[in-house]
Amino acid sequence: METPRIYFDNNATTPLAPQVRAQLATWAEAFGNPSSIHWAGRGPKALIREARRNFADLIGAETLEIIFTATGSEANNHALKGIFWSYQKSKSPRNHYLISAVEHPSILRAAEFLRDQGAEVEIFPVGRGGAVDLIDFEKRLRPTTALVSMMFANNETGTLFPIKKMAKLTHQVGALFHSDCVQSLGKSLINVKDLGVDLATFSGHKFYSLKGAGALYSQRGTKIESLIHGGGQERHRRAGTENVLAIASLGAMALEKNNLPEKLQHLNLLRDHFEGRVLGEIEHVIVTGLKTKRVPNTSSLVLDQVGGESLLMNLDMQGFAVSTGAACSSGSPEPSPALIAMGLTRLEAQSSLRVSFGWQNTLDEVNAFVEVLKKTVSRIREFNNPMALPPLTVEFERDVTHV
Amino acid sequence: METPRIYFDNNATTPLAPQVRAQLATWAEAFGNPSSIHWAGRGPKALIREARRNFADLIGAETLEIIFTATGSEANNHALKGIFWSYQKSKSPRNHYLISAVEHPSILRAAEFLRDQGAEVEIFPVGRGGAVDLIDFEKRLRPTTALVSMMFANNETGTLFPIKKMAKLTHQVGALFHSDCVQSLGKSLINVKDLGVDLATFSGHKFYSLKGAGALYSQRGTKIESLIHGGGQERHRRAGTENVLAIASLGAMALEKNNLPEKLQHLNLLRDHFEGRVLGEIEHVIVTGLKTKRVPNTSSLVLDQVGGESLLMNLDMQGFAVSTGAACSSGSPEPSPALIAMGLTRLEAQSSLRVSFGWQNTLDEVNAFVEVLKKTVSRIREFNNPMALPPLTVEFERDVTHV
Repeated sequence: METPRIYFDNNATTPLAPQVRAQLATWAEAFGNPSSIHWAGRGPKALIREARRNFADLIGAETLEIIFTATGSEANNHALKGIFWSYQKSKSPRNHYLISAVEHPSILRAAEFLRDQGAEVEIFPVGRGGAVDLIDFEKRLRPTTALVSMMFANNETGTLFPIKKMAKLTHQVGALFHSDCVQSLGKSLINVKDLGVDLATFSGHKFYSLKGAGALYSQRGTKIESLIHGGGQERHRRAGTENVLAIASLGAMALEKNNLPEKLQHLNLLRDHFEGRVLGEIEHVIVTGLKTKRVPNTSSLVLDQVGGESLLMNLDMQGFAVSTGAACSSGSPEPSPALIAMGLTRLEAQSSLRVSFGWQNTLDEVNAFVEVLKKTVSRIREFNNPMALPPLTVEFERDVTHV
Repeated sequence: METPRIYFDNNATTPLAPQVRAQLATWAEAFGNPSSIHWAGRGPKALIREARRNFADLIGAETLEIIFTATGSEANNHALKGIFWSYQKSKSPRNHYLISAVEHPSILRAAEFLRDQGAEVEIFPVGRGGAVDLIDFEKRLRPTTALVSMMFANNETGTLFPIKKMAKLTHQVGALFHSDCVQSLGKSLINVKDLGVDLATFSGHKFYSLKGAGALYSQRGTKIESLIHGGGQERHRRAGTENVLAIASLGAMALEKNNLPEKLQHLNLLRDHFEGRVLGEIEHVIVTGLKTKRVPNTSSLVLDQVGGESLLMNLDMQGFAVSTGAACSSGSPEPSPALIAMGLTRLEAQSSLRVSFGWQNTLDEVNAFVEVLKKTVSRIREFNNPMALPPLTVEFERDVTHV
């Protein structure tokens, strides 16, 4: 009997939606360069125009405010560096960059680069479980603050951050606000105008479409330098021949806007059912950020006496794809920096398991997984020396501040 | 009767090769994140590994020397900016950038950005028809030269530049040499080690594979800063989830290495047949760079008394896709800056037509095109006031210096 393959790592990437798979060959027929003015260019150009309209509509933006990129990482780099160079060009005294400690590496490393280039970069902490202390945050804002970057939802725990309030505080000192919203599509009803952000990052491959299309929302009037200079694509903001296929697939997924409430409900059902069973049937488990507001698909567990790495491998052998740390740093034995920044100990972070559900997952899959998880956790715990790891502190969960 | 659609704009982008189209759905099955260590990550990771090996083999590089990017523009930006920041970091006195006047906008605009950032950027001219004066070039090299950038073949005329000699001269002053080889794949037998370049740019969608994959060759030992910081992809040189599908398609095309001589012969046959007929059957035509060394697929015509824009539109209506200027600046009435830099007058450049052949084209298509071109040129000339445009100078073609 073949091992069933069940995918619960939808925060790393999602499988292609059926409607994307079905249209792949058709979109690929539009092979022309969208910049060509002859027949071969018109098809792909129309695909991009339609995708831009649909995507803008999905996030509540205007079409001119969408810059298609190749990846979320590119959009994040574009946001930080583009704003830095733009301020530099205008000889603005704003040179202070306030970046949350739980950001994706593409924000944190881009910020390090800005520091090398002369920017004053300040990393602000989050509380245990991921809560943001707004009073502390407000104190850190200065008249010279150029940009604040705070993610919409954390990729590890799903914790939602108070973006709207933070953007408002940020605007009070005249700074710009960027939010990495890569973990928002398909998991929330997001509206950039309602959030009040100036810049926001999105990624198609976390939203059931192809790898190769990300997007940077840049509010009308925001002065931002290009990351990639060259041709006139994306209104001279991002040069390079457009990835028509990937952009078309992102646009197709944007058409799911009206189905989102139902999809979120489905995710929430799976996640709550999963956590209910896990907390009821497995001992010594903590759900990180359980009492914070979270996107409905993510469950971040700390399993006492169970190394995340060996758990992941054991589950993989049984056909279940889950994660123990951000996908981009998987394969490395280091605990997730985001979890550490949220106040977990190294030991807790190393015993963490991320289960992230997708639209395609079913309750049967969740139940099958819980059964396997129970057995696997027991087996690993039996193998381990029970004295080697101290039990997790019971205070942890009580400590969580609500967002 | 439906208008036949014949595509002769293969320098702008190429149609997908049949083997790419055939494998699209299969590659798309490997939806996982290549950074994931579970089953879903292993398939895409293997696809990338295989593509990297095949692509490295195609251009004569080692696998570790390949950085996959999203586009040629990204790779060009990465080369120039990455070297600039790397020199800046090492506090090197090398700050002089020598860039040819016929480069793609992604080089020229990236160079302008470097100038804004404090680099000394020098644009060196090419002769009429695109020839490089090596004595003049050598004189421009300095002990403080950081990088030279000269394209492999010009996208407008197909003219090949003396890269090997220029790289050698460049290395004599200890500077690095970058070549934009976007117009090389499928049109030449290219070997980066033989050329002796330190950095080279490639693009998949000009080589019958999907949009969304470019590559930067970076010779082992070359210190280059990232353009996109973040996760550990591409050995920490280019962050962001890899476009597995597009990379796999580029790798599949790289397997055509052994068929290249035959493909080049086919392109050469089409092009020579086309130019032979055009020069024999249409009056007042010049082939730009006719006597220079060229890639075998490109033909750049100047048709006296025929505006390129109206010719293109007339041909488009009859089903033929050709170009009048670089694809990325098409739609704009400005004459191609590259043609101007090669010494054409504005009038000549505005009367230019680029016909670029691809592997899929046939002799029958060429013959059909010549017939239509003859009639269309006559018709446009009849409509035009013959006194409005002076005839082209006969000296032009004699003036061309051989490369």
